Amino acid sequence: MSPISPTALNRKILFARWPHGMPVRDDFKTVTEPVPSPGAGQILLRTLYLSLDPYMRGRMINAPSYVPPMALGDTMCGQVVGRVVESNDPGFGAGDLVLANTGWQDYAVSPAAELTKLDPSMSHPSYALGVLGMPGFTAYAALLDIGQPKAGETVVVTAATGAVGSVAGQIAKIKGCRVVGIAGGAEKCNYAVGTLGYDACVDHQLEDLHGRLAAACPKGIDVYFESVAGACLEAAGPLLNLHARVPLIGLSAYYNLTGLPEGGNQVPVLLRQILVNRITVKGFIFFDYFAARGADFMRDMSAWLGAGKIKYREDVLEGLQKAPEGLIGMLRGDNFGKLIVKVADE
Amino acid sequence: MSPISPTALNRKILFARWPHGMPVRDDFKTVTEPVPSPGAGQILLRTLYLSLDPYMRGRMINAPSYVPPMALGDTMCGQVVGRVVESNDPGFGAGDLVLANTGWQDYAVSPAAELTKLDPSMSHPSYALGVLGMPGFTAYAALLDIGQPKAGETVVVTAATGAVGSVAGQIAKIKGCRVVGIAGGAEKCNYAVGTLGYDACVDHQLEDLHGRLAAACPKGIDVYFESVAGACLEAAGPLLNLHARVPLIGLSAYYNLTGLPEGGNQVPVLLRQILVNRITVKGFIFFDYFAARGADFMRDMSAWLGAGKIKYREDVLEGLQKAPEGLIGMLRGDNFGKLIVKVADE
Repeated sequence: MSPISPTALNRKILFARWPHGMPVRDDFKTVTEPVPSPGAGQILLRTLYLSLDPYMRGRMINAPSYVPPMALGDTMCGQVVGRVVESNDPGFGAGDLVLANTGWQDYAVSPAAELTKLDPSMSHPSYALGVLGMPGFTAYAALLDIGQPKAGETVVVTAATGAVGSVAGQIAKIKGCRVVGIAGGAEKCNYAVGTLGYDACVDHQLEDLHGRLAAACPKGIDVYFESVAGACLEAAGPLLNLHARVPLIGLSAYYNLTGLPEGGNQVPVLLRQILVNRITVKGFIFFDYFAARGADFMRDMSAWLGAGKIKYREDVLEGLQKAPEGLIGMLRGDNFGKLIVKVADE
Repeated sequence: MSPISPTALNRKILFARWPHGMPVRDDFKTVTEPVPSPGAGQILLRTLYLSLDPYMRGRMINAPSYVPPMALGDTMCGQVVGRVVESNDPGFGAGDLVLANTGWQDYAVSPAAELTKLDPSMSHPSYALGVLGMPGFTAYAALLDIGQPKAGETVVVTAATGAVGSVAGQIAKIKGCRVVGIAGGAEKCNYAVGTLGYDACVDHQLEDLHGRLAAACPKGIDVYFESVAGACLEAAGPLLNLHARVPLIGLSAYYNLTGLPEGGNQVPVLLRQILVNRITVKGFIFFDYFAARGADFMRDMSAWLGAGKIKYREDVLEGLQKAPEGLIGMLRGDNFGKLIVKVADE
């Protein structure tokens, strides 16, 4: 017998329309259906926390990418932490805490093979969506394996207080680097320096980003941790040092483009920087590295968190219905810390 | 006593004016001076062969690069093979064959430490400026160390019949790859396939370069050997495979730009290709690699040449006075093979 009432309902937020530029509320649609029942080998889970991440905008673009785009009518994609309600698999029992990719809904049925069991004693289960999950791992592996920061080098981190950037910047500090952030607004910049320990942070909302970044990087830039591009890249590019490394993990400045930016083709400028200074630019997606580096990450990050060497901030929205506005706000840079939707009490 | 008559003259071709776009004859100036006398520890050499290379255009741009630009009034830079006329250093004797960076002139005085002695039994001393020199080494190290071609992969080579490209393409064939060239005109394309052994070669002077390149690369591109960029990169970019490698050794499409190209900023397109397919783009300059890889190169390339596995073609201009038009023609793609100026008989 399921502990769920047969009349209980499941809210799902669907991908309703291809956005033109910045997504709007009508690109999403909320529907309600009976809570599904798990079949053989399946598990019914209650969503506790939903992660909102910039890659979701990329799944709403009708073009090939590292995974196919969503189809109209799909439940919006997303990683969640859930509680098992009913299990038809011997590996899971009711009450287990799990990580799942079941998207924007109150309940979900999933094959057991697609779930990862979490430690039930985790003090913050939502951390599995952030500092101890995909964003934290992205920061760790892209910074260390592509960026290869060395003590004394200068590391610049875009989206410096975000879910990934905030972790990358702190790891770079642990590695003995001078670390300079780029963030939007004085509050985030103050937090980057005062709480996260950045040596400096420049506000991309103010004029002359290049000049202020140059002043903060008197020895140039050795590692440029890129999740934004656009104006950040144009400011940082001329500062890249000989043999600089550029882990490329995202392109949030471009996610809402409706055409190519105006003002001339900057490709010759960028490629000349790469050639003259023999720079390495390498694209990063976490799943290429997880098998090889996941265990290293969990060991190091758990130790750093435990020792207080990594500070972590969540920006928590209450209620599934907040997810669309949360994603839209994140694409504007409104969130401050890792954006999480709390869907139900633990 | 010098074997040179005290009335003998040295022609020097100077860098006279910063070019605006494509260089023209008046950007160079020929002057005549007495042949200089070597001082203590110096050597007087007669230039036999002068190498003309695309990087020279880069030295005529008034902007920082991996080496400083030339100054107006400098002798045009360039690597030469010379014969020692008079030596004030015990390591060199009259008649020795040497490699030097003494530029566009009939005679030059050089410190002994800046010369490299060549094997006097070399069958083609000018090869030290090409297949057995900097261009050959660039092809070897950039292709193998950055490109890392694996048997069965598809390698695309720009400037496919040029001094560097022709060698890179043939090494890729030796490594068991499918090799597709991009070259200008039917004659070069026929030569690439018929003589150099490319599997296919597409003519960038015809329309729909992307479509024809795509047809020649049915499995996409794993290594894109880039010395051109511009239209070649726009054609190749969408064909780059997962984990493709892009050794970036030159940007000849941009050397004569007088402003940014029109038609929208393609940076978002390029970076999305790099991110989605986790591509590595890395700038290459030969001197970063020579200490580590020079001996490997000489061993392998000598063996391949001896075994007839590498074909090599020179385009030889007769007389120092041909150097300016030679460089201008090379920037238009007129040369067919490694461009050499024969300055004096061996």
